[in-house]
Amino acid sequence: MKFSEVADLLRGQDKVLILTHRRPDGDTLGSAAALCRMLRDLGKTAYMLKNFGTIHLFASYVEPYGAPEGFKPSFVVSVDTASLDLIQENGMGYADGIDLAIDHHPSNSRYAKKTYVDPKSASCGEVIYALARELTELTREIALPLYLAVSTDTGCFRYGNTTAQAHRVAAELMDTGIDAYAVNKAVFSTKTFKRLKLEAMLFEGLELYDGGTVAVAVLTRDMMNRVGATEDDADDLAAFARQVEGVDVGVTIRELDPGSCKISLRSSPAVNSSKVCALLGGGGHAAAGGCTVEGTVDEAKEAILKALDTVWKR
Amino acid sequence: MKFSEVADLLRGQDKVLILTHRRPDGDTLGSAAALCRMLRDLGKTAYMLKNFGTIHLFASYVEPYGAPEGFKPSFVVSVDTASLDLIQENGMGYADGIDLAIDHHPSNSRYAKKTYVDPKSASCGEVIYALARELTELTREIALPLYLAVSTDTGCFRYGNTTAQAHRVAAELMDTGIDAYAVNKAVFSTKTFKRLKLEAMLFEGLELYDGGTVAVAVLTRDMMNRVGATEDDADDLAAFARQVEGVDVGVTIRELDPGSCKISLRSSPAVNSSKVCALLGGGGHAAAGGCTVEGTVDEAKEAILKALDTVWKR
Repeated sequence: MKFSEVADLLRGQDKVLILTHRRPDGDTLGSAAALCRMLRDLGKTAYMLKNFGTIHLFASYVEPYGAPEGFKPSFVVSVDTASLDLIQENGMGYADGIDLAIDHHPSNSRYAKKTYVDPKSASCGEVIYALARELTELTREIALPLYLAVSTDTGCFRYGNTTAQAHRVAAELMDTGIDAYAVNKAVFSTKTFKRLKLEAMLFEGLELYDGGTVAVAVLTRDMMNRVGATEDDADDLAAFARQVEGVDVGVTIRELDPGSCKISLRSSPAVNSSKVCALLGGGGHAAAGGCTVEGTVDEAKEAILKALDTVWKR
Repeated sequence: MKFSEVADLLRGQDKVLILTHRRPDGDTLGSAAALCRMLRDLGKTAYMLKNFGTIHLFASYVEPYGAPEGFKPSFVVSVDTASLDLIQENGMGYADGIDLAIDHHPSNSRYAKKTYVDPKSASCGEVIYALARELTELTREIALPLYLAVSTDTGCFRYGNTTAQAHRVAAELMDTGIDAYAVNKAVFSTKTFKRLKLEAMLFEGLELYDGGTVAVAVLTRDMMNRVGATEDDADDLAAFARQVEGVDVGVTIRELDPGSCKISLRSSPAVNSSKVCALLGGGGHAAAGGCTVEGTVDEAKEAILKALDTVWKR
C-alpha cells in the first residue's frame, strides 16, 4: 500500500477507533494520540480504545482520547502493532475486523485488511508525522505525542536505530513550540525510588566473568517483593549489566516463578545474542536476545554461560 | 564580528594552533578536532595544543591533531572557552595573543583580539559545523568529532538546551555515514564499575525531606578513597539526587577537604537554585547552582537546607 493511499483512505473515514499494543510504550500511545487528534482536526469522530496497561508516565498524553463505552466504530486502525497477538487485550474483539495497520516493524504479519509499514522509520511516530504533514496542520497537540513516540523508541536519540530522519522529525516537532525538555526530563531523567533500590541491589550482586567482559545480574522474586517493586520499576533492567565499562555481554536473569527464569542478553558486536539464546530455545537480534529456562537461578546462570561459551570463541 | 568575516579570517591564515578549555569536555575537544581537520583540508598547517586533562573516552578524537613540541603558530584560536582563566593550563602562555575566540557562551568575556559568539547554539560544535559548511566539504572525519560535540553538550539531545537546530545539525552529520551509535554507546550508555559503586553508595545514603521533594546525597573523601575513584568516576554525580521521582530539589554535598564542602543544587522550575546558592556565596542558573561551605558535611547540609527554606516558600 502506498503512502498516498493511506492518506486517502483515512480522509474517507469517520467514527474511527485506534488500537495500540500490549504493554504500551511511548511509540504506540503517542502515535495513536497524534493520529486521533489529526482525525478530529479533520472534523471526524475518533477515539483510542483505552489501554489499561498504560503506565502513569504516559497517561496524560492519551487522556483526552479514550473511547466512551458503547462507541461503535466504522473503521478500526492499529498503530505500531506487528501481529494480532500483540493487540491490546481488550481490543481482541476487533481482531477480525482491523481495517488498517500502520506500523514500522518489518515483521508486521499483515493481519489487517490493509497494511502500511515503513521499516525505515525508527518509530511508528515518524510514519504518523508524515501523515500529519499530508493531512492537516502540525499543531502542538499533534507534535507533543509524536515527540513522545519518536524519543521513546530511540531512547532519546541514543539507540542504534536512531536515524538522520528521526532527528529531522524531532526538529520539525520542536519548531511547533512544544516543551520537549519536559518530556525528556520525565521519561529519561527520572527514576522511581524503588527503581533505584533495584539497581543498587542488582549492582550489589553483579558478577563479572572472563576478565570483566561478561557481567551477570540477577533479579529474584524475593528482591522484587522486598522492594515492593512493580513491573514499571523493573522495566528495561536488562540493560543494566551491559552498561559496565569493558563488558561485551550483559546477562540478566529474572526469576519469574520458583523454577522458571527469563534470561536477557545484551551484547557488543563481538557476540551474537540471538545465536546464544537460540541454543536455549529463545531468539532475538544480534545485539539483544532472550530465552526462558526452567530451573533455578543458578541453573539458568550455568546454562546461559555454557551457551555463551559455545557461540563466543574468544 | 559577522559569521562571514570569521570564515574569511580563517581562510587567510596558516600555522594555526587551537586551544581548548580546562577539564575539556566533548564540545571543546570535538569542536577543536573538527576545526583542525577543516583547516588541514584547506591545505593549512593546523594543530591542537594537547590538553592533558583529556579523559580516556575522548582521546581518540584528538589523537591525530596534537601539536609537536616546538610548533610556532602564526594564529591562535580558542574554542568553547568563555574566559581567559578557563583556557587549558598549558595554553596560558598564549593568553595575551589569542587571535580568535569561537564560542557559544553568551558570557564570553571578549578576551581574544576577535570574538565570534553564537549564543543560540546549544554547543560550540554547531558553530564549527556552520563554518565547515562555509569553508570545506563535510567529511566523516569532520562530522564525527562534531557529533561528539553536539551530543555531549546536549546530553544526547536530552537537556533543556537542546534545540531544533541541534537536531538538524545531528541529522546532517549522520548523513555523512558516521557511526553515531558508537559515540552514544561509549559516552552515554557506559559507566565504570567504580562509578556504579559510587552511585550505589550515594543511593544508600540518600536522604529525603519535605515529603520526598528534597533529596540530599553526600559524597565524602572516604567514599572516594574506599572505591579508589577518580574525578572521572565522580563526574556529574551532582545530577544523581535530582533524578528521583517526585524530587524538586536535588542537593549533592561533596567533601573536598576536612572542613570544606562543595554543594551542588539541581532544581525543578519550582525553585531557583541560583538564589539559594547565592545565600551561601555561590551562584549559577535557575535549574543548577553551586556554592562552597566551610564546615563539616553535617554543617553544610544544615546550611543549605536553611538557605533552601529561606528561598522556597512552600
